Formats: sequence, structure tokens, C-alpha cells
Amino acid sequence: MKREHKEEMKARARNIAMIVAYDGTGYHGFQRQTPPIVAVQNVLEEKLQLVFGDRIELAAAGRTDAGVHASGQVVNFFTNGRIPTERIIKAVNSLLPDDIAVQSVWEADHDFSARHSAKSKTYLYRLHSGKTPDPLLSRYCWHIEYPLSTSDMSRAMGYLEGVHDFSAFRASGGAPMSPVREMYDAKLSVEGAVIMLRFHASGFLYHMARNIVGTLVRIGEGLEEPDDIVRVMESHDRSQAAATAPARGLLLEHVEY
Amino acid sequence: MKREHKEEMKARARNIAMIVAYDGTGYHGFQRQTPPIVAVQNVLEEKLQLVFGDRIELAAAGRTDAGVHASGQVVNFFTNGRIPTERIIKAVNSLLPDDIAVQSVWEADHDFSARHSAKSKTYLYRLHSGKTPDPLLSRYCWHIEYPLSTSDMSRAMGYLEGVHDFSAFRASGGAPMSPVREMYDAKLSVEGAVIMLRFHASGFLYHMARNIVGTLVRIGEGLEEPDDIVRVMESHDRSQAAATAPARGLLLEHVEY
Repeated sequence: MKREHKEEMKARARNIAMIVAYDGTGYHGFQRQTPPIVAVQNVLEEKLQLVFGDRIELAAAGRTDAGVHASGQVVNFFTNGRIPTERIIKAVNSLLPDDIAVQSVWEADHDFSARHSAKSKTYLYRLHSGKTPDPLLSRYCWHIEYPLSTSDMSRAMGYLEGVHDFSAFRASGGAPMSPVREMYDAKLSVEGAVIMLRFHASGFLYHMARNIVGTLVRIGEGLEEPDDIVRVMESHDRSQAAATAPARGLLLEHVEY
Repeated sequence: MKREHKEEMKARARNIAMIVAYDGTGYHGFQRQTPPIVAVQNVLEEKLQLVFGDRIELAAAGRTDAGVHASGQVVNFFTNGRIPTERIIKAVNSLLPDDIAVQSVWEADHDFSARHSAKSKTYLYRLHSGKTPDPLLSRYCWHIEYPLSTSDMSRAMGYLEGVHDFSAFRASGGAPMSPVREMYDAKLSVEGAVIMLRFHASGFLYHMARNIVGTLVRIGEGLEEPDDIVRVMESHDRSQAAATAPARGLLLEHVEY
């Protein structure tokens, strides 16, 4: 967006913020794409324009990749549309396809930015550990057919907590920015055959969550020791970490402001 | 299948039984359809033929409707194929699409029939109770936006237990058979925003589980009292029960032999 255009948008009367959930399976990520490629943002902006009556350009907390899901994506946009706030959810959801839905809406201060005001984010990664694939889990989990040591994985996750340079887990292609982030919490829990890996950090580098998960699975399979993750992290060398875990297992769960 | 053909099939050396799971969203039910309509059985038989090398005609425990899922469908078929039993799962699953997967395989006695030997079945129905739709649940749940009284629904389910004539919950179009079934167990449980309704019965009439759920939701919304389900059941009149609940919420969980 050009600077003058941005100013024009900000001159609008209302700054609307929303929590949005989506099943990312059918989309080329969140960020707007040139048709015929369809991203979540394309669909959302198209429907918001019908409801608000002016051209909508939204900003989002996280640019989730193709196939990644969200239960708590946060977006905001400026509008002169006059629909009362309490009617927005129903109006927008009635137009959206089944795989995208607005969860809540509020009118924010003019200086609130879903993207720039975010203090931290929580990503959840789900693994399905089992001998055979499960079609009822495969949309939202990475299936691992070998047994995983959850205690080893959990120990390795402990080493991620704190302030670190996460370069070793950053894919090339992301925006150039400091590779230092604070990992507030990295916890493993189990629900039946599903292993949930939850990461709460001040921010995530490009592919960081999925690259960490790839390395944790290598540890869970016994190919490396839990404290090998320290060596990988301190190498600041992407080639030391494992391959990127599949997008389908990842979910942007929550954004904190 | 003609009788002679059936005998020919049964003359084959092995009776293979399998537990199969599927996401029914993309299929016109389990039972074989004439192409281009695709049912789970079409896909499964096509892949089994590649693995076993002879023409496969399978029998299944439950003929799930279009859009209904299964974690524990049971099938069996006769074959002269010589692939060792322990290699079947991997061979078949490597050919199947992501939304169908064999969970286990065994060689059964010649007189075992997945369909006719079944003693009872367990169906699970999932409701998502919440103000806004959730795209991460919508594939496997019926979304109800009004609050539901789980205690009233649970009480109503208690009345279903025992031996009853379930005609009031039978859709027209099913095979003519006795409408008397024994409901061993009908229990409600809650997992976050999801209400799970589990039915274990000697058998289910056409649309019976979904018609019961429709009526239970009417009770949960407070439109009827819990014991109204007795009046509906004793009327033996389909028009007394509520509309059929959507297929997406239903799952064939288990078949007992």
C-alpha cells in the first residue's frame, strides 16, 4: 500500500478489528494473492466490501502460509461503513464459505494495528502418532507412523524457552529482521493419539514454528538427543535443523496485544 | 449379487476383514454407486483389486449415508490374492486417498460376514454449540447457535435406552424390517464447545441416529421437554419427530461382533 493511500484509509471513521478462524486447506495462505490464486484475505476482503460498502484493505497479525489454519487470526481495517458493530458478525459470516468465519468483532482505537500492535502470538502444532493414517485427523495433523518419545520432545522444548537467536529455524525468503525472539512458553500435551506442541513467543520468524517441529520430531523418533536442540539453535545455521514440518499441522491459535 | 456369484466368491481361499476409517465429506455414502457418482466402496474396491489381483466385492457393516464419517467401519471380502496379511495395510493405504484409510486387517473364518455377523453398532453424533460457526469443527459437527441444555438432552437420552419400536425415528426408503431395536446405551458428554451424543444399539433403522438427534436438539433448545421424547417414540409416527440432523455430525464409531 502506498503511503498516501494508507493515509486516505486511516482518515476513515472507524477502525474495525476482528478475530477470524479458518481451515487453511483450500487456500494459498492468508496474504492477498493475484487471482486466480485465492488466499483467505481475498475472500475476506471481498465479503467485507459487500457488508461495509467501501473498498476494504485489511491488515493481519500473522501471514499464515498455504495450508496453515487459524482459530485466532486478528485483522483490522478502516471503513466509513455504518453497519452497527453488533450486526457485523452475522452479516459477514452469512456471506463467507464454511471454511472461514468471523469469531468476534470490536471497534478499536484509531492507532490499533492487528499487525504492529501484536505483543505475542501462540501457535499450536498437532502431530498424530499412530501406525496407520487417520482420515479424520489428517486435515489438521502431521501423521508420524513411528513411536515418539513425548518426554524427550518435552525436554527439548524446555531449552527453547527464553530469549534466543532463532536463525537456525528461519527459512530463507522471509523479511530481513532481527532473529532474536523471546519464547515465553513451549509446552507439549497429549490428547488421545494427538500430540499438541504449543509455542507462545514474542514473534515467529519465517517457518520458525514448523522448522522447530521438524527438529522436535527427529528428537522424538530417537535420531537425536533432547539437548541436541541447543546445539542446533546455537549454530544459527538453518542446515543444522530438520526439514520443515507440513503446513497442515499448524494453527495460529491466539494473538496477544 | 446373484446367488451363484456369491457362491463363487465364497469358494475363494481367504476371507479378509478390515476396519476402515473415512472422512465422508467428499463421498456419496459408503455403498457402491454407478460412476461418475463416487462412494467409499467404489474407491476401496478399486484399490483392493490392485493389491489382491482379483475382482473384489466387499460387504460392509453399515451403509453410511452421503457425508457421514466412520472411524470403525468393518468390511470383509473373499479373495485368492496371496499378499501376506501383515503387508495389506501398507499396500492398500499407499494407494488410497487421504480421506480413506484401513486401520487394521485380519483373516477371518469363512463364515464371518461384516454385515450379517454384527451384534451391535456405536454411532457418535457431534454438535458444536456456539454463537459463531467454527471452520475447524464444521466438517465433523452440526453447528447450533442457540444455547443447548445438556442436562435436558441427557435426560431425554435415558428414555431411549432399552428395547423399543423406533418407527418414529425411521425415514421412509429403508429396507422393510422390524422397527424394534435394543438401545444398550445413549450417553452425552462434553468436550469444550463440542457435545458428543453416543448411541450403542443392536442396530439402527434408516436415518434413526440423525432423527433422534434432531429431536434431542429440539429438547436441548427448550422447545420440548425431555420426556416428550417418550411421546414421540410411542407414537410410532415419523411426523412427530424433528427434522433429520445433518450428515456431517455423524460418525460410525464401532461395530461389535
